[in-house]
Amino acid sequence: MTSTAPMDERLARAALTRTVEPGDEHAGRWIRHYGATGFLERLLRPDTANSTFTSTDLSASTGSFGSSGEEAFPGTGRRRVASWQLRATAAEPARDLDTVHALGGRFLIPGDTEWPRQLDDLGDARPLGLWLRGPADLRTWALRSVALVGARACTPYGAHLATGLATDLARKGWVVVSGAAYGIDGAAHRGALAAGGATVAVLACGIDVPYPRGHDRLIRRVAEQGLVVGELPPGSHPTPSRFILRNRVIAALTRGTVVVEARHRSGSLSTARAATRLGRHTMGVPGPVTSALSAGVHELLRGDATLVTDAEEIVELVGDMGQLAPARRGPVLPRDLLAPAAAHVLEAVPARGPTPTTAIARRAGTHPDETLAKLYELHSLGFVERHGEGWRLTNTATQASNARRGGT
Amino acid sequence: MTSTAPMDERLARAALTRTVEPGDEHAGRWIRHYGATGFLERLLRPDTANSTFTSTDLSASTGSFGSSGEEAFPGTGRRRVASWQLRATAAEPARDLDTVHALGGRFLIPGDTEWPRQLDDLGDARPLGLWLRGPADLRTWALRSVALVGARACTPYGAHLATGLATDLARKGWVVVSGAAYGIDGAAHRGALAAGGATVAVLACGIDVPYPRGHDRLIRRVAEQGLVVGELPPGSHPTPSRFILRNRVIAALTRGTVVVEARHRSGSLSTARAATRLGRHTMGVPGPVTSALSAGVHELLRGDATLVTDAEEIVELVGDMGQLAPARRGPVLPRDLLAPAAAHVLEAVPARGPTPTTAIARRAGTHPDETLAKLYELHSLGFVERHGEGWRLTNTATQASNARRGGT
Repeated sequence: MTSTAPMDERLARAALTRTVEPGDEHAGRWIRHYGATGFLERLLRPDTANSTFTSTDLSASTGSFGSSGEEAFPGTGRRRVASWQLRATAAEPARDLDTVHALGGRFLIPGDTEWPRQLDDLGDARPLGLWLRGPADLRTWALRSVALVGARACTPYGAHLATGLATDLARKGWVVVSGAAYGIDGAAHRGALAAGGATVAVLACGIDVPYPRGHDRLIRRVAEQGLVVGELPPGSHPTPSRFILRNRVIAALTRGTVVVEARHRSGSLSTARAATRLGRHTMGVPGPVTSALSAGVHELLRGDATLVTDAEEIVELVGDMGQLAPARRGPVLPRDLLAPAAAHVLEAVPARGPTPTTAIARRAGTHPDETLAKLYELHSLGFVERHGEGWRLTNTATQASNARRGGT
Repeated sequence: MTSTAPMDERLARAALTRTVEPGDEHAGRWIRHYGATGFLERLLRPDTANSTFTSTDLSASTGSFGSSGEEAFPGTGRRRVASWQLRATAAEPARDLDTVHALGGRFLIPGDTEWPRQLDDLGDARPLGLWLRGPADLRTWALRSVALVGARACTPYGAHLATGLATDLARKGWVVVSGAAYGIDGAAHRGALAAGGATVAVLACGIDVPYPRGHDRLIRRVAEQGLVVGELPPGSHPTPSRFILRNRVIAALTRGTVVVEARHRSGSLSTARAATRLGRHTMGVPGPVTSALSAGVHELLRGDATLVTDAEEIVELVGDMGQLAPARRGPVLPRDLLAPAAAHVLEAVPARGPTPTTAIARRAGTHPDETLAKLYELHSLGFVERHGEGWRLTNTATQASNARRGGT
């Protein structure tokens, strides 16, 4: 990418997701200071990019800028800046955006209506943007979401629990967020999908990269019925540090993190620790003390985490949403401000009795996956509630609807 | 029993254990007011016993004393007083004392050197006295004791855990207290006995009543190597309320209560709740959330209880004994103030290296059970410490011993 005209913010942030590793607070500080476009422009400036750094510099120096006033990023290591510059120069954000659009995906940046504002709690480690695929609105889904995470090499007990909890959470109208890994993560996504529920997979790679391989179909299914999200541009591969940094996004997106099985020092514990740091609820499902796969969970439970044994206990905790709990107090938006697609689905929800998603989809003439996505949005906004396998209008929504129709 | 001469305190309290049900705070208040002998004398006085009450009163009246100044126990229900009087009259405390002495047992009352003063935390529900059998000193044992309790119909997982925890606690020099019931209680006593350790069974019946039947041999073994304790006089049988009230004694005697397996609303939870009320540590060992026998424990752990997974974590919690921790700071008593039997065993502990109980018993010429009991007392008093299967002098005890011998 070359710096010629003033850059578009979205294009700049797309380029930066290829330039800077997820969660780099150093870059985050410069972006806060210069703005995304300003930061990228500085990286691409010929005087810094070409004259100050050469590949010799890159391999020879570990020092930092900071003494000379000419330097663009005082206090940031020279090698780090050189690496950013090399990657920024190679970035082709327009092509990345095209790739993702071709998949039916999109690229969200802070300020977008769909941007989940709770990610701002990550401060300078906030994602630069989010690549995503799927029919749902990430912001409204995230408002009523819980992370279910745990060991890859889980036991049948753990897999059974994760599936059951995800199914029950989905039935209660909660969105299940996880990391698409083998073991607990996969069981969580599958449990939510099986209940015809909502699920979000946050990947540590590009959203077009099926990782792990064996979850290719699962991830595709999540992208159809839910959302597949990631910080990394298309084609990117996961690395150990990307897995760990991905976990902070799972923790920040959701109202709480439940760890189902985890060994001592397991990666899933990093999600739980991030949740605690961010003021989210941290929960753990206990298991036999004779199982090494419960040892990490028990460690958490001996600290600040809350022991939970079923979906009801999880919802009891995360459901106390205070200001964020529109479902408890009726819609937060006037019906007329709904996006047309959501308003259209809402019109198709009958006034009486719970109605299955498929019946609503038929009435609305929309695809069931798309319909489900909108129903979860409407749920988050307090217009509808889930009842068993069906959906119905909330009391408040019914009153509003009656009032509009001139009823009582 | 008839009221003739001023009564001996021990005799009066022995009679009262047959008169008043365990934990009766009403009686406790009168005893605090009149003293044990005064209270009993009032119950036995012909004017109250014979003229005020008849068996007709007993069946007809549910009213209370309180208006007339002549009445002995204003504010206490008439039926209750009548029942006390009938039972006090029938009591034969001298015979009960003889029965228990014949078994090699004894009857402790508040003020005795062996009385565990932490029972005073029970206030007016404090036991009136304790009947006990066994070679050990209850007061010193209780100072380093933990209750391990749980379900009668436990799972193999629970039994395995209880045995293992008891063995490990015993190896670390802790006394395991439980209720001699089937299931977790029995496993706890057996685990401690198997490690050659110390254990106390607190019964909800007379200490000569083998309840449950199938634990006849186990209870006898505990009485030989440890202590069998109860509030009820010889020959008394357990009742549901006696089981529940027994639990408060287990909670009060110990530094903390660990619940291993318990269903929702199980009796073991009453021990845990009593422990919490008394400011003792309450702990629970988690299990599979799919097991109904862990549901009660998980309920506790969602409240104030601490999750523990092994003996080390238990000791970490209860071992922080503050003022009560003589073992951490050397002996609390000068060696010369030790009871002769304990001093005799202490002399037999070699200056160097851990020595098994049997070897110390041989050197002292005392029975191994008696020796073990004294070693646990010496442990509580900070003279010896346990090391694997053996015992050795604590540093402080060694220094004191060297000083006495003129060493350095």
